[in-house]
Amino acid sequence: MISGANYIGSKESKEGNIAYKTFNPKLNLETDWTFYEANKEEVNEAVSLASDAFKTYKNFSGIKKAEFLRAIAKEIELLGSTLIETYMAESGLPEGRAIGERGRTIGQLLAFAQLLEDGSWVEASIDTSQPDRAPMPKVDLRKMFSPIGPIVVFGASNFPLAFSTAGGDTASALASGCPVIVKSHPMHAGTSELVASAVLKAASLTGMPNGVFSNLNSKGFDVGRQLVLHPMVKGVGFTGSIKGGTALSKMANEREEPIPVFAEMGSVNPVVILPSAIENENDKWANVYANSITMGSGQFCTNPGLILGVKGDSLNSFIDALGREVSKVEPSCMLHPNIYNAFESGKNELSAQKNVDVVASYSENATVNFGAAKVLRVLGAEFFKNSTLHREVFGPFSIVVECKDYLELENILKQLEGQLTGTILGNAQELKDFGSIVEALKNRVGRIIFNGAPTGVEVCSSMQHGGPFPATTDSRFTSVGVRSIERWVRPVAYQNWPNDLLPQELQNENPLQIFRYVDGNFSNKNIG
Amino acid sequence: MISGANYIGSKESKEGNIAYKTFNPKLNLETDWTFYEANKEEVNEAVSLASDAFKTYKNFSGIKKAEFLRAIAKEIELLGSTLIETYMAESGLPEGRAIGERGRTIGQLLAFAQLLEDGSWVEASIDTSQPDRAPMPKVDLRKMFSPIGPIVVFGASNFPLAFSTAGGDTASALASGCPVIVKSHPMHAGTSELVASAVLKAASLTGMPNGVFSNLNSKGFDVGRQLVLHPMVKGVGFTGSIKGGTALSKMANEREEPIPVFAEMGSVNPVVILPSAIENENDKWANVYANSITMGSGQFCTNPGLILGVKGDSLNSFIDALGREVSKVEPSCMLHPNIYNAFESGKNELSAQKNVDVVASYSENATVNFGAAKVLRVLGAEFFKNSTLHREVFGPFSIVVECKDYLELENILKQLEGQLTGTILGNAQELKDFGSIVEALKNRVGRIIFNGAPTGVEVCSSMQHGGPFPATTDSRFTSVGVRSIERWVRPVAYQNWPNDLLPQELQNENPLQIFRYVDGNFSNKNIG
Repeated sequence: MISGANYIGSKESKEGNIAYKTFNPKLNLETDWTFYEANKEEVNEAVSLASDAFKTYKNFSGIKKAEFLRAIAKEIELLGSTLIETYMAESGLPEGRAIGERGRTIGQLLAFAQLLEDGSWVEASIDTSQPDRAPMPKVDLRKMFSPIGPIVVFGASNFPLAFSTAGGDTASALASGCPVIVKSHPMHAGTSELVASAVLKAASLTGMPNGVFSNLNSKGFDVGRQLVLHPMVKGVGFTGSIKGGTALSKMANEREEPIPVFAEMGSVNPVVILPSAIENENDKWANVYANSITMGSGQFCTNPGLILGVKGDSLNSFIDALGREVSKVEPSCMLHPNIYNAFESGKNELSAQKNVDVVASYSENATVNFGAAKVLRVLGAEFFKNSTLHREVFGPFSIVVECKDYLELENILKQLEGQLTGTILGNAQELKDFGSIVEALKNRVGRIIFNGAPTGVEVCSSMQHGGPFPATTDSRFTSVGVRSIERWVRPVAYQNWPNDLLPQELQNENPLQIFRYVDGNFSNKNIG
Repeated sequence: MISGANYIGSKESKEGNIAYKTFNPKLNLETDWTFYEANKEEVNEAVSLASDAFKTYKNFSGIKKAEFLRAIAKEIELLGSTLIETYMAESGLPEGRAIGERGRTIGQLLAFAQLLEDGSWVEASIDTSQPDRAPMPKVDLRKMFSPIGPIVVFGASNFPLAFSTAGGDTASALASGCPVIVKSHPMHAGTSELVASAVLKAASLTGMPNGVFSNLNSKGFDVGRQLVLHPMVKGVGFTGSIKGGTALSKMANEREEPIPVFAEMGSVNPVVILPSAIENENDKWANVYANSITMGSGQFCTNPGLILGVKGDSLNSFIDALGREVSKVEPSCMLHPNIYNAFESGKNELSAQKNVDVVASYSENATVNFGAAKVLRVLGAEFFKNSTLHREVFGPFSIVVECKDYLELENILKQLEGQLTGTILGNAQELKDFGSIVEALKNRVGRIIFNGAPTGVEVCSSMQHGGPFPATTDSRFTSVGVRSIERWVRPVAYQNWPNDLLPQELQNENPLQIFRYVDGNFSNKNIG
């Protein structure tokens, strides 16, 4: 079923000269499939098709686009165990995770379908005319979101389904009315091809224009660069490293017509421990965090890589308990030897810093490609001055910072780079008493959590997955949840347009019965 | 009343060595006032104060910020004739325009005050918890907009009030909860100082923190560059040239922490003439467009610089009528000799292109600094291949393009750069018959107008003043209307936060009675 071809619209194509294989990290062996990197002509063809498809696709009704998304969800489900097995082979992740992530991917597609069926997401705004206004008559103005054009989505190594081929970026872009060209992640090109085949089957079944979706293989940087620089591409979605994301963003900004790049990049997800948490619930939090640090081999963008508390007996016993719990967790397979090697070298580099102590280190001779968790401890003053310690180590790794007092802790928070999340452990009274710490943390993050762990990103309207740079390139948007659709649209205003030629969302009769902002009031009623 | 000082928070300061004067273009003479460019220390001080002010200002209630905005409006009004006379002296614009623009500036401030009093603009979104959900309980998530930090606003040459010191960028940023540092436009530094004094008086009367607003003088590029590169600055608003806007945007993207720059830049605002418009209403449209082209000496970003029709007798008679009407319009004073000189050289450069004919040119010996309108005509094929003719000439200038057929017209539209507006003249039936032309135009613009002129930008929720690059740096936002507040905010999500410690906008009781998106439904009700 896996051919190794690129999917250029509905066509399978392998014209390129560069071939590569994916890798099974558990077996430490290449998989059987050979993938053919898209060549320049294939890339151009995919973009041209997308640009043509945009002309019709952008004007499809929400109902029609929702049918497409629901069909994708169904076709992904129909891939059955083939998809799960391929996912597991290419990622080293266990079956439960594969099934869970498939569920999430399907759930996301259905959530966007529902959003489209409801229709209010376009933020229709209407100001009716006042022909008698003095000194100047007021014109009729009506505005709603309109899709920006073909979007390039880069598959993410750590979410072969939910942040890749038909993941959140693709689902949100397709929902918005933008065609999508996926540059599949080379570590899971087979999983990507299977999902792409499902998307294309769904496109055909629901009458979508050819080119609304393409999936291109690529092992190196050329395909991605060509896509981001292509004049017909109008936006980019990326989840990955700070280095990769900022390179793409820079490239996009240097185009003759700069385009938005929404890159979700690094985060160490600071956790602040206030006194009551470790005085009263030491063991609970040690257990929760041992789990959160090691879950999925720590390969989550919301992995808690930094825990801050104030030095003392309570913090010591938390550190001891955390160390015990982490040491108990059996290492699990990482996504790929490259990821494993980067983890090992990052871990070693941070461990080798001055005045850093080891809290927990899984010491058994680990299986190849299996990530052995490590937790370090360091004094606040040392952490403050050594920026190497602020770096994200992607994998089951965390540093506990022992501050001399809460002022030092607050100063560390203020100095931190932007983060996806920040967490406070404590009680409600402490949230008030340590208000300036809460404020400092909130200022650096997109999501602030009380008494929980940052891992586990709920897909819903109120989720914010995006924070100040370098957590993401644009903190004004989210990449998780239905609001992520707003990355791919721009408002278009119609002035004095004939009512029956307006998009339905803006017509007086409000045929879709959506919520609109009419002359200063929210309403789902019709006008006049 | 004009001291020439910088306003660094509430302090007047003139420590710098660079002095300059503003210029009265009507008298062709410098004004009496001397302005002192802010030096490095003064710039740093203004940014530090803004950053400090942000800590408290961002948490002020909508009601309190609205009081501030209303007080600014009142204090601007109280400047009375001094402001009007200074504005006229520094801009060469007539009294009616000065009074009108003051009205618009005050209207904008009051519109934002109303938005804050209403409160729903924060787009509160609530997903309540489902502790019993299987396999994982659902957490409680609540999200709303939160201001990003100190914003730098560059005063615009062509709107000394409405797009400058207390104009749309400043009003929207202050409304969002962001302190503002204005780099005043050197052509109207006196007007800017007067308005700054009004803002600061209002800040003091309503108990705003020192540093919530500063006004810095600057003649060259250094102050602007220092501001945009300052690590504590978190966003930039700019209205001006493509060159200036892209330079700022590039600078902001090369920072260690890139920040959003919303630059509103060039636009030629294409107008498409369909047959019925000139067959039936030739004289009307010639009159409307002669007015629109020459109004305010053509110094509007929405000035119609490009008119497209299909060659023939009707178009010929439209061109003749337009030429007659434009030739009747007396030249009026331009903002500054620099603007006048740029207009003259742009006009001459385009007039000197091959196969271009003059339709109308005010031939009297014009007064110095007065812009004599010019309209050119050219064949579609010539326009298509000569990109010099696509350039904006800032002033009373337009080109009529005679296409051989509607296909050529459509191809020209497709090739155009992004625009603020696009206009169609015709009837409803033609909007259907020429659907692909309408679609091509819509694809390049932020606002599409039926049977009107692009000049005259209504300030309301449904206005979109922002289009694909290079009309603006980010077509996903508007710089006019209350929705422009969204440029300066980012969503922040609270997970499992205690109800009484949430911002009021997110509390169960909905004490502000705002519209929220609760568990998938819009409502202004409370929860539970």
